[in-house]
Amino acid sequence: MEKKIITVSREFGSGGRTIGKLVAEKLGIPFYDSELVQKIALESGFAPKFVEENGEHSPGNSLFSYAFAPQGVPGVMNGLSAADFLWNIQCNVILQLADKGPCVIVGRNADYILKDRNDVLNIFVHADKEFRADRIVRLYGNSEKSPMARLNEKDKRRRVNYQHYTGRSWGSAEYYALTLDTSIIGVEESADIVVDIVKKSRESKDSNESKE
Amino acid sequence: MEKKIITVSREFGSGGRTIGKLVAEKLGIPFYDSELVQKIALESGFAPKFVEENGEHSPGNSLFSYAFAPQGVPGVMNGLSAADFLWNIQCNVILQLADKGPCVIVGRNADYILKDRNDVLNIFVHADKEFRADRIVRLYGNSEKSPMARLNEKDKRRRVNYQHYTGRSWGSAEYYALTLDTSIIGVEESADIVVDIVKKSRESKDSNESKE
Repeated sequence: MEKKIITVSREFGSGGRTIGKLVAEKLGIPFYDSELVQKIALESGFAPKFVEENGEHSPGNSLFSYAFAPQGVPGVMNGLSAADFLWNIQCNVILQLADKGPCVIVGRNADYILKDRNDVLNIFVHADKEFRADRIVRLYGNSEKSPMARLNEKDKRRRVNYQHYTGRSWGSAEYYALTLDTSIIGVEESADIVVDIVKKSRESKDSNESKE
Repeated sequence: MEKKIITVSREFGSGGRTIGKLVAEKLGIPFYDSELVQKIALESGFAPKFVEENGEHSPGNSLFSYAFAPQGVPGVMNGLSAADFLWNIQCNVILQLADKGPCVIVGRNADYILKDRNDVLNIFVHADKEFRADRIVRLYGNSEKSPMARLNEKDKRRRVNYQHYTGRSWGSAEYYALTLDTSIIGVEESADIVVDIVKKSRESKDSNESKE
């Protein structure tokens, strides 16, 4: 089965985002990182419509105005927390992006959101903490917090978020076609492995078809 | 850092053993599967000596005779269960095999046993249950139990054993350089990926050395 959508889940500082970008470039397909998905969710006029039509806790027409309500409004919207509200929109944005065609999506639990499609290749990128600490200081500079504290905080947030919204255990191999430790394998090398797998999935599609 | 030892942990029926064998052949290094390690542990004269010298619960000289005691002796040996006794021997056999030189070791929690070496590449191989059920019937034939029951039983035994002896969670990405879903990536293709990573680890060693 040809894999058209690649989702990248990653530990902070592991190079997962860079791998996603390289894979998208090498395959010539769009790249959506976590921040971009959130931006599309908040800016797109159509996303709230999808929430109304498809959201599990479909909250009605008044929601769109809430989403852009000034600060100071209560943290819940018709029984949905702001986080759950954004989660619903993001789910629908990600489902739409995947429907539009081949792409790479980084973060936002896209592996889980797209679990009912069989043309998705899910990968998880991690690395040992020293490698990641070095890398975030090199890429993002120093901050008041130590690199280790930043790693632990971000990892914890992602793990809790993933578990909360998916009921799955963060970083468990069973949910991914491939997991990669970039401190051993390397960031560019990991991207090459993913690209090869996607290209081979196209060949297997062709060979299956020629047999039919 | 050059990776000289490759450990393969695997779900039953996923093709992990085949991957290990292919990798060993392609790299021209010895291949030790789970059963072979157990055989060496039970047959080697030197293994019990290592247990006496290095075993955590070093139980004294009388143990060797217990290991080959006829059935019917109590299931414990100087406070060690038969399983713990074998575990100690296997640990030492695996440490010795790794000391002897490059090799591939399948199963027996070798990833954990060799965790203090930094020339080890740990991989975990898994696949969806339908793929594995088809594969075990094709390779091992039918039996009284359904393929799914056989899978669940073997998986459970490996998971419990791993957790018991390592305190780690079975199949968690963090413990492996690489995890591979063979139902998506393919068995031979997975072996090729591992071989490439090992070969690249040799290059990186060379380039580091030339810089020094």
